[in-house]
Amino acid sequence: MNSENRYSVILGNLGNTCDRFLSSGYKDVAPKEELVAQAAAIPGVQGIELVGTWDVTESNITEIKTMLNGHGLTCVSIIPDLFGQKHWGKGSLSAKDAPTRALALEETRIAARIAQQIGCPLVNLWLGQDGYDYPLTADFVGQRSYLTENIRTVASEFPELRFALEYKPKEPRIFSFQARAADTLLMAMETELDNVGVCIDVGHSFVAGENVAEAAVMLQHYGKRLFHMHFNDNYRSWDDDMIVGSIHMTEYFELLYWLQETGYDGWYSMDQYPYREDGGAAVGESVAFLRAVEALLTEERRQAMRELIATGDATCTTRWMRELLLSRP
Amino acid sequence: MNSENRYSVILGNLGNTCDRFLSSGYKDVAPKEELVAQAAAIPGVQGIELVGTWDVTESNITEIKTMLNGHGLTCVSIIPDLFGQKHWGKGSLSAKDAPTRALALEETRIAARIAQQIGCPLVNLWLGQDGYDYPLTADFVGQRSYLTENIRTVASEFPELRFALEYKPKEPRIFSFQARAADTLLMAMETELDNVGVCIDVGHSFVAGENVAEAAVMLQHYGKRLFHMHFNDNYRSWDDDMIVGSIHMTEYFELLYWLQETGYDGWYSMDQYPYREDGGAAVGESVAFLRAVEALLTEERRQAMRELIATGDATCTTRWMRELLLSRP
Amino acid sequence: MNSENRYSVILGNLGNTCDRFLSSGYKDVAPKEELVAQAAAIPGVQGIELVGTWDVTESNITEIKTMLNGHGLTCVSIIPDLFGQKHWGKGSLSAKDAPTRALALEETRIAARIAQQIGCPLVNLWLGQDGYDYPLTADFVGQRSYLTENIRTVASEFPELRFALEYKPKEPRIFSFQARAADTLLMAMETELDNVGVCIDVGHSFVAGENVAEAAVMLQHYGKRLFHMHFNDNYRSWDDDMIVGSIHMTEYFELLYWLQETGYDGWYSMDQYPYREDGGAAVGESVAFLRAVEALLTEERRQAMRELIATGDATCTTRWMRELLLSRP
Amino acid sequence: MNSENRYSVILGNLGNTCDRFLSSGYKDVAPKEELVAQAAAIPGVQGIELVGTWDVTESNITEIKTMLNGHGLTCVSIIPDLFGQKHWGKGSLSAKDAPTRALALEETRIAARIAQQIGCPLVNLWLGQDGYDYPLTADFVGQRSYLTENIRTVASEFPELRFALEYKPKEPRIFSFQARAADTLLMAMETELDNVGVCIDVGHSFVAGENVAEAAVMLQHYGKRLFHMHFNDNYRSWDDDMIVGSIHMTEYFELLYWLQETGYDGWYSMDQYPYREDGGAAVGESVAFLRAVEALLTEERRQAMRELIATGDATCTTRWMRELLLSRP
Repeated sequence: MNSENRYSVILGNLGNTCDRFLSSGYKDVAPKEELVAQAAAIPGVQGIELVGTWDVTESNITEIKTMLNGHGLTCVSIIPDLFGQKHWGKGSLSAKDAPTRALALEETRIAARIAQQIGCPLVNLWLGQDGYDYPLTADFVGQRSYLTENIRTVASEFPELRFALEYKPKEPRIFSFQARAADTLLMAMETELDNVGVCIDVGHSFVAGENVAEAAVMLQHYGKRLFHMHFNDNYRSWDDDMIVGSIHMTEYFELLYWLQETGYDGWYSMDQYPYREDGGAAVGESVAFLRAVEALLTEERRQAMRELIATGDATCTTRWMRELLLSRP
Repeated sequence: MNSENRYSVILGNLGNTCDRFLSSGYKDVAPKEELVAQAAAIPGVQGIELVGTWDVTESNITEIKTMLNGHGLTCVSIIPDLFGQKHWGKGSLSAKDAPTRALALEETRIAARIAQQIGCPLVNLWLGQDGYDYPLTADFVGQRSYLTENIRTVASEFPELRFALEYKPKEPRIFSFQARAADTLLMAMETELDNVGVCIDVGHSFVAGENVAEAAVMLQHYGKRLFHMHFNDNYRSWDDDMIVGSIHMTEYFELLYWLQETGYDGWYSMDQYPYREDGGAAVGESVAFLRAVEALLTEERRQAMRELIATGDATCTTRWMRELLLSRP
Repeated sequence: MNSENRYSVILGNLGNTCDRFLSSGYKDVAPKEELVAQAAAIPGVQGIELVGTWDVTESNITEIKTMLNGHGLTCVSIIPDLFGQKHWGKGSLSAKDAPTRALALEETRIAARIAQQIGCPLVNLWLGQDGYDYPLTADFVGQRSYLTENIRTVASEFPELRFALEYKPKEPRIFSFQARAADTLLMAMETELDNVGVCIDVGHSFVAGENVAEAAVMLQHYGKRLFHMHFNDNYRSWDDDMIVGSIHMTEYFELLYWLQETGYDGWYSMDQYPYREDGGAAVGESVAFLRAVEALLTEERRQAMRELIATGDATCTTRWMRELLLSRP
Repeated sequence: MNSENRYSVILGNLGNTCDRFLSSGYKDVAPKEELVAQAAAIPGVQGIELVGTWDVTESNITEIKTMLNGHGLTCVSIIPDLFGQKHWGKGSLSAKDAPTRALALEETRIAARIAQQIGCPLVNLWLGQDGYDYPLTADFVGQRSYLTENIRTVASEFPELRFALEYKPKEPRIFSFQARAADTLLMAMETELDNVGVCIDVGHSFVAGENVAEAAVMLQHYGKRLFHMHFNDNYRSWDDDMIVGSIHMTEYFELLYWLQETGYDGWYSMDQYPYREDGGAAVGESVAFLRAVEALLTEERRQAMRELIATGDATCTTRWMRELLLSRP
């Protein structure tokens, strides 16, 4: 299949994943090299995302680079670990505690340097611990300002890298500071730096109550700020991190349509938690789903979609989708 | 197409529908005969549901019967209007006010007599006003007991009719007494009458957080208590009453599979609010979707689904659905 | 009680309110003068909001003005009716249909002229019909641009008025274009006009999954764009429009604290749908609740709250609230 | 304070708690004896719940019993670990895999024997892994039947113990088989054993969309099946396991009122995940909140509540609560 979209996966998705009741994880831990090989074996996958300190550190860059090259994989983003260590428990770049903020800033710089050295153009910031849980415990003025300032600082130090802010309404905090597309875009714009944008995780967007295609269009409208995309599926009330296409259908058609329409040229990256499934198979199925949608989005069908959108008649749209998916000659 | 399932529609779905901000409705009011003709014109539709006092009264039964016969339609249920008049504002069969309860009981009897006279075997009770809005305002002991007693009374008076209790978590009350499948089943069982069962409205079940196929299986498990089915679609957080298949996909496959597997032999009835769409077209599209799913559920595919269920591997299930829906030879 | 906050109500809240199942409303319709008298009788209420065409038109301005003056009430906002008529069914200022957009623009101008003539400084735009229901039916690029342009047009024509955009995630459309605080703020900022800002309806904010105090702080942070406040309560999943304080408690303390902290100087306006309650009593109870909270927020307690926020310890905050509310000497 | 309610805590709540992003937990692991001492130090706490294999095994019963006695604590329930080990990943008592089911049955028997030996009258079954994640992967007929049968088996083997089924709509599975009060009650009743009942976890009930007081009344109505209560708080969309009273207020008054009214005589047990808080302080604050509510529920106020419920006027109820909580003489 001749694909225009570029597909990638987050390496850790292929490994063991745990939850709060089963902290050992549901599966066994496999060696990193095996995970990379699994990623490379997924038809259509050309890129990989790495978590700083989990997957890659300043001391194993060469080794990782060689491993990726050996499998024909590109590193598409570095995700600094600002969420998975005890000292981030009350926030990283927005922490009230100044030494913690300084530590978080340094951790982000390390991720940026790793990105430079590994030849990766993007740092993806998911600030899962930066938020709050209870009313009357967060300093909305001060902490949001720390957050914006710290992002501005690191992004201005690495002007040749792009920084994508991945929003999520909640979890692990009950309220995240970067919760929705527009909030996060505002913060990106406030930095006044062109290399700060937003990453949409499709599942996070569902949980936020957004229509994900509309969120993408909005981010592109305000200065092409959609830098990166994470794909997974869920039931809209929680970040279930399921196989793409297992729950939603038409929404993916709408999203892929608009991503192309608005000139999104980043990666289509898988971000799942296949707790009980074989990681490679589950992530591979997600890529297969998106490639199948992409293949159906021929120019002829895209033209039909343009007309459906212009008409705006729900019955016509639903009929068109039904005929596309369920009709048999 | 040779269909085993029997499809019907609620007559009012084809007419004008309003909301709280636009009480005139979004469309014009069409004469009843026209709505009946529209229903009959939908491919596959053989039955109709009527709301007592709105669509049918004791004085126009013959006229309505002739109208339905003229279009080859069967009346599949009578829905007493226990929700759309001011005097039901604080409840009908569960009202704290005794005269209101008596009035509601009588209204239900009228619906039952209409059903008898029109040759319809089922009364569908949707008790939308029977519930509460604020903490510390409902008498859970007394009101639930009124409700159960009143249902027992009317159902024992009309033993040859079946009474289906249609649950819904909320709206118009913030909490309904008959909110979910299991709560409602418990009340049906408490009547100790075989002619009291449950109606699943698929959208209500989504809003309740249920997996609708599981709810159907449960109702069938406890004495074949699934008496009736209403179909529509939504985004799981509110009763949007959309076109079937516009949002969900795999859930309908699972539901139709289990309905057949557990011997459901009632009607597949459409219950929508096409506020801004042409009513006939929107309801017709729902029927077309369900018939398309039914057609795909060949015995061969049903056997494949049995195996997927036995295996329980999410990747296999998702792949099978993708190949069914998106693969092109 | 010596209050600094100024309280107002939306006139229609005191009248009859309907829902989609009971379009006649649950109560009887009272004459406008009676509603105004009821509003004026609520302790603490000094202002009123009027819906254009429902409550006030260009032809009855003098009469309404006299009526308000007679009761010592100020008109605090005019809300153009861009949601309650059939021709807005597929949108008003964002409609795909150009004549409809022109009509909506004119309706907004009429509201602005009414505001000028009645001496009211604010037009509150709630664009309930501007959104969409189904995937693949909305033109996110074109329609959002119509919307922004039209707001810019009317706001630039009336530079001495302020225009507050009242966001709401859904209802009557399943997705609104002005859905959340940040999306709406972005659009306000895009107009590049200082007299375009945002109205927070507390219930809408709950439904949006926001922490409402955080939303207020954000709007104030980006140029003091919080122009107006609507108060009501709900269970966070739907715009139940309940009595303030009936469900939430600490959130109101946090909100009122931050409103003062960030210099909000607009009105505290009640926006409820007391379907089954006496309107005056229900709205009056909301005002009483907010005034009680205001009275408790002494400078001493505000200082304690500042410290709780700085500390950020959930146990301390919860204990402080418990001692404030439940302790008895 | 002279309390009639008996308060207890789940021992593990006081220890370290983790989530899926921080599997080491946010705090350090303290020795069991220290946790027991912390529990005993909370004013009002008289009982403790223990998780089988985590906290207590057949080999350390005497030691644990001595430890509890030393601190004047009673063991109020044993919770078998049917959720926190890899082999339960696809279910325990409902697993499709027969050896896994046998293992789960044996694990439950062990917990029952521990309960007997430690002198604890109740086994609390939280079957977190018994459910499913994706459509078309669960065998609703077979698996629910395994589950019911296994519960019947173990409960009939230990007739002098009570078995409380703790329902939860989701997490760790996306759909639980024991999801809501009524579903779970049906299964309890299906066993035809008087020693099988239900445990309400208040937070689980909120997530299920239930009004928790109504759920309690329903369980008591059908044969006094409410065996146990777990307390915590959340925002209604997820099991946040927060400090009791931090988010909800009136609901707890309504719940405690009805628990007494319907003769609930079990424990009031705390079940929280104070990820970032001091465990003893956070759990202690929950107990303090419930005791404060209990103290306010004097017979005089209970009589007032009876009247509010009989009247059913939302404004009266809200006013009463406001005057109780916010009024200052």
